Amino acid sequence: MTIDELNRFLAGAFTDDPGEVLELSEKHALMRLKSTDRHLRPGGTLSGPTMMGLADAAMYALVLGNIGPVALAVTTNLNINFYRKPAPGELYARARLLKLGKRLAVGDVLLDSGDPQASVAHVSVTYSIPAH
Amino acid sequence: MTIDELNRFLAGAFTDDPGEVLELSEKHALMRLKSTDRHLRPGGTLSGPTMMGLADAAMYALVLGNIGPVALAVTTNLNINFYRKPAPGELYARARLLKLGKRLAVGDVLLDSGDPQASVAHVSVTYSIPAH
Amino acid sequence: MTIDELNRFLAGAFTDDPGEVLELSEKHALMRLKSTDRHLRPGGTLSGPTMMGLADAAMYALVLGNIGPVALAVTTNLNINFYRKPAPGELYARARLLKLGKRLAVGDVLLDSGDPQASVAHVSVTYSIPAH
Amino acid sequence: MTIDELNRFLAGAFTDDPGEVLELSEKHALMRLKSTDRHLRPGGTLSGPTMMGLADAAMYALVLGNIGPVALAVTTNLNINFYRKPAPGELYARARLLKLGKRLAVGDVLLDSGDPQASVAHVSVTYSIPAH
Repeated sequence: MTIDELNRFLAGAFTDDPGEVLELSEKHALMRLKSTDRHLRPGGTLSGPTMMGLADAAMYALVLGNIGPVALAVTTNLNINFYRKPAPGELYARARLLKLGKRLAVGDVLLDSGDPQASVAHVSVTYSIPAH
Repeated sequence: MTIDELNRFLAGAFTDDPGEVLELSEKHALMRLKSTDRHLRPGGTLSGPTMMGLADAAMYALVLGNIGPVALAVTTNLNINFYRKPAPGELYARARLLKLGKRLAVGDVLLDSGDPQASVAHVSVTYSIPAH
Repeated sequence: MTIDELNRFLAGAFTDDPGEVLELSEKHALMRLKSTDRHLRPGGTLSGPTMMGLADAAMYALVLGNIGPVALAVTTNLNINFYRKPAPGELYARARLLKLGKRLAVGDVLLDSGDPQASVAHVSVTYSIPAH
Repeated sequence: MTIDELNRFLAGAFTDDPGEVLELSEKHALMRLKSTDRHLRPGGTLSGPTMMGLADAAMYALVLGNIGPVALAVTTNLNINFYRKPAPGELYARARLLKLGKRLAVGDVLLDSGDPQASVAHVSVTYSIPAH
């Protein structure tokens, strides 16, 4: 799938703003979310579900970019380490595909506010790919 | 903190609906979220961030129920296994406290649609507790 | 499989001592490992790999107890939170099955030194079950 | 600490062979373990605890390389995704430091059999650093 196709697919599939795919290659995807007040947690930084949601969407985009629009690919495991507090504004998710098998896809995602050298969270994601 | 105090605190702290604390004891908390269209993912079931958000809020409530309204307690790690698809409607989070230390609190949460024998996801959560 | 069959199977399958299955039911398994010097980490407590190994073996036993001796069931994800230091001696793993599907089995394990009210670590485990 | 100092420290701290540090910089460490029969699991590939142990040691080396020989730094969370089966022989752990705070250090590790483009497992690790 192309970046445009992916963005149209994601916008149609999610009821909430999933963010936008900016870059896509065989092993990497980059997404960006422009946050609103609804994405905040106590203390005024971006909430955990906001971070998780963007990381999950970036891995979904990366998997679909490889296998096509299989809407029912589902996350089976997600592990997130939060180690810095992301300021409101733009949140970036840089996803890396580690394994694309017939049944499972595994990757990880670094989240940052625009500077990839200052990541705020690391996310491991496993997707289950339905049998054809 | 009492259940009423916790619910007022959570409602004031989150910009989005965090769900409602129904039960609270030293080692357990029960929360419920009434889902809306905004909580759906492709396929019409509840989204991962919705599940993660409620699990995280339930552990937050359980920790605050023990140590008081320390808003800046933050999640450092969250691991979620998704193994059934939760139907729209009510989502319940049943949190269990495994360790409450000076610096870290560890627990886990089972999510279900009302029947605790048919859980849909299991979540491990670690909170970092700020120094006084 | 019975407890005796499982213990013979585990002893034959592992080159290292996997511990012993003490109890087994449809949804629970209890294993015990008697530690030796080889299981210690700096500081004289039991090492992380020792804890992980016993937790993984307990979930393996619980899955095989349900589906029979499928040696090639493999762990796909394991998440462990360490929150107390286990003294040398006996280590117990109390495994709980949360979901047994055709492709994946999910459960969690509490580890303790004999008192289930004083667990030392919590482990989430996912097994992939090979197609027949 | 230098690579030689780290290897002496690790060899003295562990009762079992922890593997050898081959490379160390501020943000990366490379370790190698030469496996023996004791490291095998059913099916003849390297066991999960072997992989976890090397990943954990590599992150320990990377943290100690930064903060000095603080033996009592302890792992608080470890998440491992297994996605290929590592053949017996040499196992490599490539650790990356994502955050070094006063209380917590977070990083991840890729494991492979010598070819970094064909990793077999991905590990996220959090260390708790004792107060001075």
